[in-house]
Formats: sequence, structure tokens, C-alpha cells
Amino acid sequence: MHRRTLWTDRYALRMERMKSSIIRELLKLTEQPEVVSFAGGLPAPEVFPVAEFQAAAERVLTEHGPEALQYSTTEGYLPLREMIARHTARYGIVVEPENVLITNGSQQALDLLGRVFLNPGDRILLERPTYIGALQAWNAYQAEYVSVPLDEVGLRTDLLEEALRAGPKFIYALPNFQNPTGATLSGERRRELVRLASQSGVPLIEDDPYGQLRYEGDHLPPLVMLEGELHPEGNDCCYSGNVIYLSTFSKTLAPGLRLGWAVAPTEVIERLVRAKQGADLHTSTFIQMVAYEVARGGFLDRHVREIRRVYRERRDTMLAAMERYFPEEVRWTHPEGGLFLWATLPEELDAQEVLKIALEKEKVAFIPGGSFFPSEPEPNTMRLNFSNATPEKIEEGIARLGRVLERVLAKSKSARIGR
Amino acid sequence: MHRRTLWTDRYALRMERMKSSIIRELLKLTEQPEVVSFAGGLPAPEVFPVAEFQAAAERVLTEHGPEALQYSTTEGYLPLREMIARHTARYGIVVEPENVLITNGSQQALDLLGRVFLNPGDRILLERPTYIGALQAWNAYQAEYVSVPLDEVGLRTDLLEEALRAGPKFIYALPNFQNPTGATLSGERRRELVRLASQSGVPLIEDDPYGQLRYEGDHLPPLVMLEGELHPEGNDCCYSGNVIYLSTFSKTLAPGLRLGWAVAPTEVIERLVRAKQGADLHTSTFIQMVAYEVARGGFLDRHVREIRRVYRERRDTMLAAMERYFPEEVRWTHPEGGLFLWATLPEELDAQEVLKIALEKEKVAFIPGGSFFPSEPEPNTMRLNFSNATPEKIEEGIARLGRVLERVLAKSKSARIGR
Repeated sequence: MHRRTLWTDRYALRMERMKSSIIRELLKLTEQPEVVSFAGGLPAPEVFPVAEFQAAAERVLTEHGPEALQYSTTEGYLPLREMIARHTARYGIVVEPENVLITNGSQQALDLLGRVFLNPGDRILLERPTYIGALQAWNAYQAEYVSVPLDEVGLRTDLLEEALRAGPKFIYALPNFQNPTGATLSGERRRELVRLASQSGVPLIEDDPYGQLRYEGDHLPPLVMLEGELHPEGNDCCYSGNVIYLSTFSKTLAPGLRLGWAVAPTEVIERLVRAKQGADLHTSTFIQMVAYEVARGGFLDRHVREIRRVYRERRDTMLAAMERYFPEEVRWTHPEGGLFLWATLPEELDAQEVLKIALEKEKVAFIPGGSFFPSEPEPNTMRLNFSNATPEKIEEGIARLGRVLERVLAKSKSARIGR
Repeated sequence: MHRRTLWTDRYALRMERMKSSIIRELLKLTEQPEVVSFAGGLPAPEVFPVAEFQAAAERVLTEHGPEALQYSTTEGYLPLREMIARHTARYGIVVEPENVLITNGSQQALDLLGRVFLNPGDRILLERPTYIGALQAWNAYQAEYVSVPLDEVGLRTDLLEEALRAGPKFIYALPNFQNPTGATLSGERRRELVRLASQSGVPLIEDDPYGQLRYEGDHLPPLVMLEGELHPEGNDCCYSGNVIYLSTFSKTLAPGLRLGWAVAPTEVIERLVRAKQGADLHTSTFIQMVAYEVARGGFLDRHVREIRRVYRERRDTMLAAMERYFPEEVRWTHPEGGLFLWATLPEELDAQEVLKIALEKEKVAFIPGGSFFPSEPEPNTMRLNFSNATPEKIEEGIARLGRVLERVLAKSKSARIGR
């Protein structure tokens, strides 16, 4: 029911118009139990360490009840920040707890960075396609985007110098198992990226939600470390402060916590803290203490090994099923980790049309790739999540999707012949 | 240690200058255990329902573990929104769960409202002094302020018509036990406020974190209800949609949860949801489910009665101690509820200087009132919190502060005589 109010009538024009999103409407259908959904970016609920959370909540409230329920500092719970600093040091980046800000998921870090650094019209250099949440966060600050396409080994660094000439304020990169494509930036390109950024004096935001979820191949050094190696002089070890590193507990512990962090120069942390004070004062004390209690003592490492085992199997199941059921005209990525893979249909197909048919005829869902593009969308692409559904559901869902694609392709061919 | 980085050196000028706040530095001293602090706005940790939180966390994780740890909707946990809608209906405002958005404390609601409605230079009409967090939230959107002074019965509505001529985008009011003054807007002035706002076509934000914490006198109808009564035609009952109503569990359950809510027209909720998606996706699922589990079944009402009993005693202790220990030149408010009272020193005194002496000589703290003013600060004012310290500490702290004020006043008098 629409009701006329001063808020809506008087200020309608100043409020950004609601985009009535067809995709949003379609995806509401994925809540039906018979739908197999590869649409979300949801971790597998089966691997959530529920018992450990129970024990941790019990312990935190028994030992520190009043503290856990009270207001706390905007920076975040110190033992958790210390743990994150230690953890970061494993990757060769020596930082102090003062370099760590706790945020409500790394989404909030993106928002706060926008608030601190962006003026309307500022340009951000990023991958095409890229994480849609970053675009959502920075659209609010009227950012503009300069984008560089990806291939199977990540950002096309051969196109980077040209893009840097647009004068971006910073570069935003997801080097590991990128959302949405699953692509991983090669070691060589990582070095090229930090070299060119440094040469142009453009700082970097490295978003790394999935870095620990690698299912094959060797760990590659993060940008923050490679960039530090360009500035050995004057640094305790490797943190130059030019790369802001973001990560999260959403994919290793549980996303329902809303717990992420930013590693940044202390002066930037101070500014982010001021911004966060205005945004929500601080992140839930109780949640931070419970997450610390669960993660400490080596549990997190053991748990991540278990997640890797489960997700590797699901990825392999999906890849094998795609080989079996997808038409040969469809191509897809082979991600070495993370939660997503990316399929490319023949150019004449529109994945949004395919989604409509997939939901109606076969009750299977994915995200059309177009919305992940800051510009020049490729409507013939789709993102598939392999972490949430069980292997049985994945097998079944890919078989369904294969049938949809066969049908759509046949129709498209006969239309072409008919022309 | 200051380190030169691209983030800090290159963008220093664009980043809002850090105000190195003397007050901020002074208040760090309040962490020393021997300091009696009336500075914060902290609830009494003794009244946190720790056992109930333990039972609730256990139950939520046993019965809904995977759901509690998974991503959830941006709007918030439906049973919690239903409970809030029912609770709101008690005050005569009939709203649906669709009118409720869960936020990370009501601070986030202020921020999201700024994001949705404010353009640089937009004016907001508010009380002088007012809640400092609202100024922090809206300064980020380059708002400007038109302010109307308060007296013991709240906003001076006799000055409102004049202020409304400045064309504010909305009015922001804290009618109950206002932070920082403790003043409560009288019934008559409430009606005058909504009448004048309606006449000028200016919508309202009613911030009500303390409404349930009344220690004497009768409950007064919220603005949202009075405003609804101006528009009986066409409304199911009373919610016209012209007043956005904010509240929180911070003062009734625990602030460390970071759990608040906004009641608004559904079209505004939709916009706030889009803004919150970019800001942090959603509020912690686990925290929402635990808070619901604690609050439901009548516990919240029983618990609020207990909080009222404890805080009433603390307020009475503080007021009695002020009578006993404060110099007669000092005046103060007699709040009917909430967490704060407001003292006014003779005009020649600066409360920031008093704080310095209070901390150094007597180890007692409060907040100088100047920072709560959007303009025309009155440096001879101070905010005192009476909810956090025990009655014994309050007695002791007010005695200390009395000695400080005697000393400062004596010095000021002798300086005047000496001139």
C-alpha cells in the first residue's frame, strides 16, 4: 500500500530512484524449497561450528558478562585485533593491533573507506566484473569507475597503465578467487600491479575474503606484502601503509556474525574510527568476544581445513557436472578456491532471460553476470555459487541448468536459421 | 609513529582535519580505576541480564544454530520486527513489521537517514544542545543546523515558527529525558511542535532511546502518535508516516548488542534497506535472535521495571548529593527519567577548565556541555550521567566535584575582586 507522507512526497526527487530490479524479483523465488539455488554467496550451514559458538557464548558471558554487554571502543576488542595482527604477520606483513579496525563485515570497511576518502566524481580503478557490494558502497559517495577486464589469471595488467592515466584515487582489487569470476591474479601480475600502482603513486585496497579457502595450487603472496617489498627502507618489515588490506570472518567462521576487519596505516585507522563513530559507534562487543573465543587456540586453522575439504568437493562436483550436462558452447572458469565460478554463454544469449526460464521450468537459480560490471556489462555471463548446496543438490541443479541451456541454445539456433 | 603513506600524504587535504580534542584526551584519564566518572552514557553493568543472555544464546544455537550464523535479510529478523511493531502499538501507533528496520543501535538509523535524505547544505532543525551522535552522523553528509534552545520543559516551541522559516528538511527531536539535558518536552509543547511542523510541511525524526526509563510523573504521548492524530482521515489508526520514530535496546537490554530500530513509512524503509545493504549488508543475525529470545515472553517489561528502580535511586542520590555539596551558584535540571542531568555554572566559568582540575585534583569526570551545541556553545555547562556509577560512588564523586566547584568559584571571585 502506498501512503502519501511528507518523507516520500516531498523528498521523492532527491531520493535516488528505486530501481525495481527484475533480478531482485526473480531471486525472491529462490526461497521456495524445491528451487536449487546457486545464486547467493552463502557458506555451507553444515560447516558452521555451532557447538563451539555455544561453548564460547557460555564462557564469555560467565567470565566477562557485563563487559560483553557494555559499550566498547570503536576500534574493536583488543584481543581480537591482536589475533588479527598476529594472523596477518603469517603472510609476512608485520602490523600492530593499532593497524587493525574491526568492522561489521568487510562491507562496512568498504563503506567507511568511501566515507573517508571519496568526493563526488572521484575515480576508482577496479576489475571488470567486480564485487557488487563495493559498487553499492561507493555509489553512495558518487564515485566513478575506471575498469580493467579480467581473464582466467585475473586483472589484465597489460591494460593497467592506460587505465591509470585516468587518475584514479585508488585501485580496488580482489586477487584471490575473485567474486564473481573465481579468477586468481597470477604471481607475475601481482608484482606488475603493485609496481605500476607504486610508479603512479596510486594506493591500493586489497579485498581478501576468500584467501584461506584455496583448494589447489600454492598460496600466492598478497599485494600488501609485495608492495611492502618495494619499500624495504624505513619499514620494520614490510608494511608500507600504501595497501589497505580487508578481510572477514564471514567465510571462515560465520557470516551471520557480521565481523570483518581493515588493516591500514594508523592515521587512516584513526579516520576510519571517526567515521565509524558516526556510523554505528562500534561493532557488537558480545559478537567480537564470542568470535575471539571461538577462533583462538588454533581452532580457526583446524576449522578452515575442514571448510576447504567440504568446498573442494562441492567445487569438483559442480565442475564435473558442468562437463557432463552443459552444452559445449558454454565456457566456465576453474577456480582454485573461494565460493564462485563464472560461466560465459554464447554472445547472443542473455543470462537474465535464461534465469527466468531456469526458475520457471526447472526451478534452478544463479545470478546473471551483468550486474557485476561497473560498465560495459556482458549479459551472456552468469555467476554460480558452489559452497552452499550439498553435492547431491549441485549435481541435480547443474543437470537442470544444463537442460535449460540446451533448450535456450536450440531455440536461439532455430531462430537464427529461421532468419 | 607517523609513517608517510600514499593514503595519508596524498589525500591528507581531502580528509576532514582530525580535531585533536582536548576533551577526548582528558577523558582517557577516566579509565583509571580511582576516577569516579559521570562522563559516559553507560548503563549500569549490574543490571545486565547476563543469565538470560546465557540461556537465550544456548537456546538460539541449539534450536536455530545454522540460521543464527548465516547471512540474513537487511530488514532484520522478522520475529523481532513483529515484536517491535506490537510494542509500538502499545503507544497507540499501529504499524506493521514492514514499517520496522533493525539497525546497529539507533546511531546507525541516524546515519542511514542522513544517507537517504541529506544533500550537502541541507538544514536540520534541532534542539540546542542536542545528542552529539546525531551531529556526528549528519556532519558526514555536510548538513547545516538550525537550532532552537531548550528549557526545563524541552524545546522552546515559542521560537519554532521563526526557526522553521529557515526551510529545514526535517526536525530532529528527543522529547523524553533528552541527552544531554534530561529535559522532557511537555504535553502542550509536544502538540505545538507537531502542529507547527505539520503546518510547515516539515517531517520529524523522533529519537526515543530512554522513553521507558521514566522514574516519576506520567508517560507523555510520543510525537509520532500526536502527529498521527492530526491526520485521522485515511489512516488505519494513527501512523501518518510523517514522523520517523527511532529507539533501541541499548538502554533496556544492553548497549553492547548494538541493536536499535527505525519505524518509518514502508517506502522510506525500502530506501533505508538499500542504504544499509551498501553500509554493512545486515545486522548480526545471531545478536538479533538472541535479543528476541531474551526480550520475548514479558521479560523485557519486567526487566525495565528493575532498571527503573535502580536508576531512580541513582538519580535521587545524585540530586540529593548535589544539594548537599554543590555551591549555591550552580543550577541543575531535575530529570524525570533517562540517564543524564545538566548543570549550569556561573557564566564566567568554563566547564572544560573545571574538568581539567576535577581530573587532576579530585579524580572525578563529567562532560563539558559545549560540545553538545550545534552552534552558540555555552561553555559553562556540564552533563552528568547518573546510571553507571553505584550510589556510593555517586555520593563520593559529587562530593569531590563539589570541592572542585567551590575551589574554582572562590578563585574566580578573588580574580574578580582583584581586577
